[in-house]
Formats: sequence, structure tokens, C-alpha cells
Amino acid sequence: MDERLKKQLAFSLEIDKEKNIFRQTHLSGHGRNENDAEHAWHMAVMAYLLKEYANEEVDINRVMLMCLIHDIVEIDAGDTYAYDAEGQKTQKAREDAAKERIYSLLPDDQKAELIAVFDEFEDNATPEARFAHAMDNLQPLILNNSNGGGDWKEHGVTAKTVYGRQTKTRLGSEKLFAVTDEIIQDNIRRGNLPE
Amino acid sequence: MDERLKKQLAFSLEIDKEKNIFRQTHLSGHGRNENDAEHAWHMAVMAYLLKEYANEEVDINRVMLMCLIHDIVEIDAGDTYAYDAEGQKTQKAREDAAKERIYSLLPDDQKAELIAVFDEFEDNATPEARFAHAMDNLQPLILNNSNGGGDWKEHGVTAKTVYGRQTKTRLGSEKLFAVTDEIIQDNIRRGNLPE
Repeated sequence: MDERLKKQLAFSLEIDKEKNIFRQTHLSGHGRNENDAEHAWHMAVMAYLLKEYANEEVDINRVMLMCLIHDIVEIDAGDTYAYDAEGQKTQKAREDAAKERIYSLLPDDQKAELIAVFDEFEDNATPEARFAHAMDNLQPLILNNSNGGGDWKEHGVTAKTVYGRQTKTRLGSEKLFAVTDEIIQDNIRRGNLPE
Repeated sequence: MDERLKKQLAFSLEIDKEKNIFRQTHLSGHGRNENDAEHAWHMAVMAYLLKEYANEEVDINRVMLMCLIHDIVEIDAGDTYAYDAEGQKTQKAREDAAKERIYSLLPDDQKAELIAVFDEFEDNATPEARFAHAMDNLQPLILNNSNGGGDWKEHGVTAKTVYGRQTKTRLGSEKLFAVTDEIIQDNIRRGNLPE
């Protein structure tokens, strides 16, 4: 087997570990915690289905690739909960080190290519990144909503904090932010989320 | 919320159940069984990384979409193990019923679109479908190989049976079939797979 293919398969095997990185979100039906690979898959399918709601025209294939790879760094860096202020202080440094180690398993051209996709997601400065971020927010929201807001209750999160995070959704899709708003308001009314 | 978006979100929530459909394959590091959503995610990323090895030019975005959705029917139909001859007799009927129920949650145009992608995968008659099938075979193979062939041992599978299934890989990628062959031969030598 040549060197290039060997590297591609080594990376392919390495990313299997993303299935062991668990998030705070629970699966619908009051299920177990979700892992990063499942979350990425779900986001990519949702991006495809909901692409008509992007604020700006997007290259949906790039959005989907972004969704699929955006959490690979968490294999080393771990998941940082959206409302964990302490964890967020060190998140960037942890993820940068992880990015370098994991993507270096690939041939140089693919390392550069995937890091560019990941950085674009993180920088959130393109229509594709903004729509991918909308999915990153909406996907756990629909699960949490289906579970009566259990994830918010577990972490004592308030509506204000949720709105803080969900501003990113608005940058990617006004239409999906309106849905987000509807869901949040409904959960406030149902007592699942304190104002 | 309008009817169209309501349907899209209902489908988005429904497919969350794919994370509860477990396969016979185990995660690397002698981990737990893998589920369909993880498998689909892994296949889609691998398809992107290995696209240069497709026998014919492929629309990689269609391949990735195929990978992402090909197992949604298993939410109702369950996973049929690659070497389960009895289960395979009823697989088509179970999957057809599932396809109709689950995709009907979507607006009609998206239902038709995704069913076409799924049917294309099943028919295996296009370069995209053939490359997606190569991923469907290669992805569990690299996991199983990393675990000393544990999945084969558990099911008493022989090399002949494995080769039977892997013919589909050859249709999608001669180069990746050569790798497959190398892995199988190595496992025979190591006593992980009886000839």
C-alpha cells in the first residue's frame, strides 16, 4: 500500500474515536447522551434538507463537509458545553493542538484542505460557515425541545443564555431563527426554561 | 411555522432514531457496537477523503448524501447483518415499507428526491452508488481489522463469505479492493479469518 493511502486510512481509523466523545445533549425519547459523530451526521442531513432557508446562497456541499468534520478536534480536546464559561477559556488552545495532531495524519494537501474547512467554520465569516453554525445550534435544540428541555434543566440554563448562543443561528438563517425563537418561547411558557 | 418547514423538522427529529439502530461492527479499541448514524457519518467522510480512488469519475456530493441517508430505512426495518442469509430474504420488503413511511414525513419534492438517492444506492448501477457501496464495505472492514477480526470471529464468518461481499468494493474502486484484499489476506495469516 502506498504512503498516501496509508495516511488516509490511518486518519479514517483515527476519527472513529469521535464516536466516543459525548455531548450534553440527549437523544430524543429521553435517550442517552449524544456523541459528536452522531451530531455531525444529523447536522449534515439537516443542512441539506433546510438549505432553502439560508440567508445567503450557500455551497451546500461545503456546508455539509463543514458539519461532518467540525468536531473532529474534540477527539483530543473533548466537548466543551455551550454554556460552560470556564471550559471556553481554554477551548481554543486545546482545539488548536488537536487540529495539528489529528490532521497531520493526512497527506499534506488534504491536511491543508480540511484545516481550511475547519478554520472557516470557526471564523464564521462566510455564508457556508454561518449556515453550518445555524445547524450546530438547531440540531440540539430540536432534540432538547422533544425532551421537554431536559438538557437546560440539568444545567440550570436560562432563556437569556440560550438566546445569547442562538444569535449565531440568526446570522445563518432568519427563518430558522424565527423557529428557534418560537421553540424557546414555548419552553418558557411550559416552564422548561426560566426567563 | 408553515407546513413545509414543519414537515422538514418532523423528519429531522424522526431520523434521530437512527442513532439507536446498532450494527454488528464494533468501534476500534474493542469498543461497543456501532450504530447506523455513526456508520453513515464515517462513510461520508471516508468517501470525501478517498474519492481519488473511484474507478469512474463521481459526483462526490451525491456519494456523500447517499452515504448519509442510505440507512435511514433501518429505523423501521432494523439492521440486517451482511452475513445473515435469513434476514436478507425479507430485507427488501421491510425496507420498502420503511422508506414509504419515513420519507413521507417530508414535503413531496424532498420525499421524491431522497427516495431517488436511496434507490440509486440500492440499485448500485451508477458510479456514485458503486463508490458509496465501496465505502459501506471498507468502513466496517477497517474497524474490524483494527480489532483483530473480532466481528468475523463472533459470527464464524469465513474468508470466502467476506470475499463474496467485497466484490461490490471492486466495482467502485479497484484500488480500494486491492487494500481490502491485503487486509483479508493478512487476517487469514493471523488466524483471524478461516479460509
